[in-house]
Amino acid sequence: MTRDVAEQGSFPAKDYHDPPPAAFIDAKELTKWSFYRALIAEFIATLLFLYITVLTVIGYKSQVDKGSDPCGGVGVLGIAWAFGGMIFVLVYCTAGISGGHINPAVTFGLFLARKVSLPRAIMFMVAQCLGAICGVGLVKAFHNTYYNTYGGGANELADGYSKGTGLGAEIIGTFVLVYTVFSAIDPKRNARDSHVPVLAPLPIGFAVFMVHLATIPITGTGINPARSFGAAVIYNKEKVWDDHWIFWVGPFVGAAIAAFYHQFILRAGAVKALGSFRSSTHV
Amino acid sequence: MTRDVAEQGSFPAKDYHDPPPAAFIDAKELTKWSFYRALIAEFIATLLFLYITVLTVIGYKSQVDKGSDPCGGVGVLGIAWAFGGMIFVLVYCTAGISGGHINPAVTFGLFLARKVSLPRAIMFMVAQCLGAICGVGLVKAFHNTYYNTYGGGANELADGYSKGTGLGAEIIGTFVLVYTVFSAIDPKRNARDSHVPVLAPLPIGFAVFMVHLATIPITGTGINPARSFGAAVIYNKEKVWDDHWIFWVGPFVGAAIAAFYHQFILRAGAVKALGSFRSSTHV
Amino acid sequence: MTRDVAEQGSFPAKDYHDPPPAAFIDAKELTKWSFYRALIAEFIATLLFLYITVLTVIGYKSQVDKGSDPCGGVGVLGIAWAFGGMIFVLVYCTAGISGGHINPAVTFGLFLARKVSLPRAIMFMVAQCLGAICGVGLVKAFHNTYYNTYGGGANELADGYSKGTGLGAEIIGTFVLVYTVFSAIDPKRNARDSHVPVLAPLPIGFAVFMVHLATIPITGTGINPARSFGAAVIYNKEKVWDDHWIFWVGPFVGAAIAAFYHQFILRAGAVKALGSFRSSTHV
Amino acid sequence: MTRDVAEQGSFPAKDYHDPPPAAFIDAKELTKWSFYRALIAEFIATLLFLYITVLTVIGYKSQVDKGSDPCGGVGVLGIAWAFGGMIFVLVYCTAGISGGHINPAVTFGLFLARKVSLPRAIMFMVAQCLGAICGVGLVKAFHNTYYNTYGGGANELADGYSKGTGLGAEIIGTFVLVYTVFSAIDPKRNARDSHVPVLAPLPIGFAVFMVHLATIPITGTGINPARSFGAAVIYNKEKVWDDHWIFWVGPFVGAAIAAFYHQFILRAGAVKALGSFRSSTHV
Repeated sequence: MTRDVAEQGSFPAKDYHDPPPAAFIDAKELTKWSFYRALIAEFIATLLFLYITVLTVIGYKSQVDKGSDPCGGVGVLGIAWAFGGMIFVLVYCTAGISGGHINPAVTFGLFLARKVSLPRAIMFMVAQCLGAICGVGLVKAFHNTYYNTYGGGANELADGYSKGTGLGAEIIGTFVLVYTVFSAIDPKRNARDSHVPVLAPLPIGFAVFMVHLATIPITGTGINPARSFGAAVIYNKEKVWDDHWIFWVGPFVGAAIAAFYHQFILRAGAVKALGSFRSSTHV
Repeated sequence: MTRDVAEQGSFPAKDYHDPPPAAFIDAKELTKWSFYRALIAEFIATLLFLYITVLTVIGYKSQVDKGSDPCGGVGVLGIAWAFGGMIFVLVYCTAGISGGHINPAVTFGLFLARKVSLPRAIMFMVAQCLGAICGVGLVKAFHNTYYNTYGGGANELADGYSKGTGLGAEIIGTFVLVYTVFSAIDPKRNARDSHVPVLAPLPIGFAVFMVHLATIPITGTGINPARSFGAAVIYNKEKVWDDHWIFWVGPFVGAAIAAFYHQFILRAGAVKALGSFRSSTHV
Repeated sequence: MTRDVAEQGSFPAKDYHDPPPAAFIDAKELTKWSFYRALIAEFIATLLFLYITVLTVIGYKSQVDKGSDPCGGVGVLGIAWAFGGMIFVLVYCTAGISGGHINPAVTFGLFLARKVSLPRAIMFMVAQCLGAICGVGLVKAFHNTYYNTYGGGANELADGYSKGTGLGAEIIGTFVLVYTVFSAIDPKRNARDSHVPVLAPLPIGFAVFMVHLATIPITGTGINPARSFGAAVIYNKEKVWDDHWIFWVGPFVGAAIAAFYHQFILRAGAVKALGSFRSSTHV
Repeated sequence: MTRDVAEQGSFPAKDYHDPPPAAFIDAKELTKWSFYRALIAEFIATLLFLYITVLTVIGYKSQVDKGSDPCGGVGVLGIAWAFGGMIFVLVYCTAGISGGHINPAVTFGLFLARKVSLPRAIMFMVAQCLGAICGVGLVKAFHNTYYNTYGGGANELADGYSKGTGLGAEIIGTFVLVYTVFSAIDPKRNARDSHVPVLAPLPIGFAVFMVHLATIPITGTGINPARSFGAAVIYNKEKVWDDHWIFWVGPFVGAAIAAFYHQFILRAGAVKALGSFRSSTHV
C-alpha cells in the first residue's frame, strides 16, 4: 500500500481518516431503509437486553426466598454478568446494523461528538425506550407472581445514600462506559495502535460489567436511561418515579463529559502531537 | 486489491459475497468424506457438551447436599458458565469441520436460511441427539449414586410457571442464540464492518451463558433440543416427558423467528441500503 | 498473493501448509539456545501456574474455616477460574517461546502427532514437573500453617467414587483440553476458516476452566500430570500416592485419543474432502 | 511485501524491528502535548480504576453486614473480577494514548527495559498516585458511613502472615503481571508468532484477576503501588502505614525481575536462536 501511495507522488497528511462529522439534520437519511432497519435493530436489542437482565434479577430474588439453597442463586456477580454480557453480545450483533448503541446515553454522547445526526439520535432514543418497556413487560408477563414482590428490576436509591451520591455514581459509571465506547470506535486505533486490536464489543461489555459490580449496592446501576425508564414504566410504583430524574440526568452528564474528554483532551491533543512528531522527523 | 480490480476495468457490484444458497437436496454431498467427518464432529461435540455440563449440575447438587460448605459449590452462576463456556470451546473447535452447530435449533435455523441442505440438517440433528444421549449416559455411569437423586440434569418446568411461560422463555432464549449465530456468520461482517472483528465463538458462547442466567429458574434452560432430549432419555422419569414438547417446539420456533429476522429484516434491508448509498454517491 | 502465484504459472496443491513432522530425534536441536530457553519458559510457567492455583485453593479453604463470612471465599467457581485463567495467561505468554505446553499431557499429545521431537518432549516434561514442585513448594513456604490442614492442593479421589470413575474423568477431561489445543494450532485454520480467528490461548484456557467445573468434585481435576505430581511431592502423605497413577495414565490416554481423533479422523478426512471438492469444481 | 524487499536486493536481517531504546532523558519530549495528554490519561485511568474497585470492596462488605442475604454480595471472586476487568478495560482505552500503564510497577519495569524515559517514568508515577488518591477519595465521599468501617480498601497484611510472606506474594504477583505485559508488547509477536494474536489487554487483565484470586487472603493484593498508596492516604490509619513499604518494594522488585527475565533470558536468547536458525538454513 505504501508503494501505491508513492507512485501517486503524494504522502497522506494523516495515517488515518476521521469520517466527516454527521450532518446536524440530514433529511435524506430519513428516506433510506437502512435508517428504519437500524431503528428496528435498536428496538429488538434493547428489548432483549431488558428481558434477559430483569429476568435474571427477578429469578435470583425468587430463588433466594425459596431458601432451600441460600447460595444457589446467581448473586450480584451473576446479575452484573447478565448486564455486561448482554451488552457484549448485543453490541456484537447490532454494531454493523445500527452502531450498537442500545442506550440513550451512548447515543447522546455520539450525537455530541457529531457521529450521529439529531433526528437519528432522537429516533434511536425512542426506539430504545420502547424496546425497554416491551422487554420488562415480557418479564412481568412471565413472572407475574414474583415481579412486583421483587421490585421489578427498577432502579432506586438504596437506603442510606443521598441523591447526590446516586447522581455522582451514575455520572461516573456512564463516563466509564461512554469513554470505552469512544476508545473502541476511534479511527486512529487501526492506523496507529496495531498492537491493540479492536474487539470492541468485549471491552464495552466489560465496562458495563464493572460498573454494575461497583454501583449495584447504591442505585441498582442505571447508566442507561432506557433501562431505567422501561423498568419504571412497567413497575410504576410511586417511589420509583421520585428519583427517576437521576437516571436521565446522571447518564447524560456522564456521556457529555466522556465526549468532551475524548474529543477535546485526547483527540485534539492527538492532532497536535502528530504535528510535533512530523516536524521533528522532517517527513 | 482495489488496484487489481481497477485494472480489470470493472467495479464489484457488492463489496461482499453471499455464498449461493445450499441446494435443498444435494446427493453428491452424501458421497463425500467431509460430510461424515462433520457428523462425527457434531456427535463428539454434543457428547462432550452434555458430559461436562450435566456433570457440573450433578456435582454441584451433591456438594450442596453434603452441607459442610453450603457456598462451596459452583452455584447457578457456575452452571451457566459451564453451558456457555463449553459452547464457546466447542464452536471454536468444530467451526472449521462441521460449522459448529451442536444444537438442532441452530441447524434448523441455518436450514431455513438455506445455509445447509435438508439431508445434512436431518443427519446433523440425529448425530446431535445421539451424542447428547451418550454424554448424559457417561454422567450417569460415573455418578450413579447421585444421578437420579439430583434430577439427571433434565429440563422441567419449575413449580409455579405455566406451560406458556416455559414455551415463551424457550422461544426468546433460542432467538437470542440463533440471532447471535446469524450475526456472527454474516458474510457482510468482514467486508463492511471491519471495526467489529469476528471472534464468532465467543459471543455465541456468551449468548448461551446469558440465557442460562435468565431462564434456569424457569425451565432449567433448554434452547437446545438435543440437550433436553439426551437428558430426558437417560433420566426417563414420567414427569420429564410430560413437558418435553416445549423443548422442541420452543427452540425451533425461536430459531425460525431469528432466521426470518436476520434474512428478511436485517439483510434484505442491507441490500436496499447499499443501493441507496450507491445512487447517492454516484459510484 | 494470488497474483504472485499466478505469475509463477502454478496453482498451490493445498491452500495451507502443514509443517513437516518433527524429526524423532534431532541432535542439532540440543545445540541451540532456543531449546534451553524453551525449557526455562516451561519451568517458570508451570511454577507460576501451580503457585497461583494452589494458593487460591489454600486461601479459599482457610477463609471458609475462619467462618466470619461463609460465602466470602472464591468458591469452587473461583478455583476453576484460577486454573483456566492462568492457562490462558501463560499460554499467551509462552506460546512464542516454547509453544506454551505447561502440561506433560499436552506435550505427549503433540509428540504423538509429530509436532515435537522425543528429546524435546522428555525434557519439557522434566522442566514442567520441576516447575510444579517449586510452585507448590512456594505455597507451602508461604502458607505453612494452612498448607497441610487443607490438603495441599493435591489431587485425590473424592469419597464415593471408584478408581474407574476417576480414571474416566481424567481421560475425558484431558481429551477436551488436548482436542482444543489441536484445533487451535491447526494450520488449516488461517487458510480456510477465516470466519474463526485464532485467539488460541482463550479457548484453551476456557477448556481447562470447564473441565474443572465438572470434575473438581470427583478428583479435584488433574488433567495435567505435572500439576498432580508437584502437589503430591510437596504434600507427600501416603494417601495421595495411592491413586497417583490415575493422574498420569488418565491424562496420557486422553491426550493420545485426542491426537488420534484430530490426526486420523478430522485431518485425514480433511485431505480427502479437499480432494473431492477439487475434482468437483475442476480447479 | 517479500517481493518489494526482493526488488531492493537485500534481505532483512531480522523479520521484526525492535524500536530503539528510549533516551534516558529526552528534553524534547517535555515540549510535546502528547506527553501531557498521556499524563492526563494515566491520571484519569488510575482514578477510575481505584474508584470502581474500592467501591466494589466497600459495597460488598456493607451488603454482607446487612445480613439479609449472606450470599448476595459479589464475594472475593467479584472483587477479583473488578480489579482484573477494570485493568482490561482501561488498558484497552489508554494503550494508544499513554501505553496503558495505570501502575507504577509497570512503568518501572518498562523504564528498566528502556521503553520509557526517566522523566516520563517519574511523571507517570506521580500522575498514577494522584489519580489513585482522587479515586479513593471519591469512594470515601460517596460512602462515608461505610468507608472507615470496612477498611477503606487499603492493603494490609492479614493476621497470621509474616512480612516476608507478604513481600514474597507481592513480588511474585507483580512478576506475573509485568511478565504478561512484556509478552504482550513484544514486537516479535506480530512478526513470528502469527498463531498467537495480540489482544493484549485481555491477558493483562486476566493476570491481574488471577493474582487477586490467589493473594487477596494474604495482603489484599497490591501489585500496584499507586493503588496501595492512594488507599493508604485516604484511609490514613496508623496500621496501614506500618507495612506500606511492602507494597512499594514488592512490586518494584517483581517488575525488575520480570524485566530482567524478558530482556536477558527470553529476548537475548531469541536473537541467538534466530542466528542459529539462519546459519542452519543458509539464508
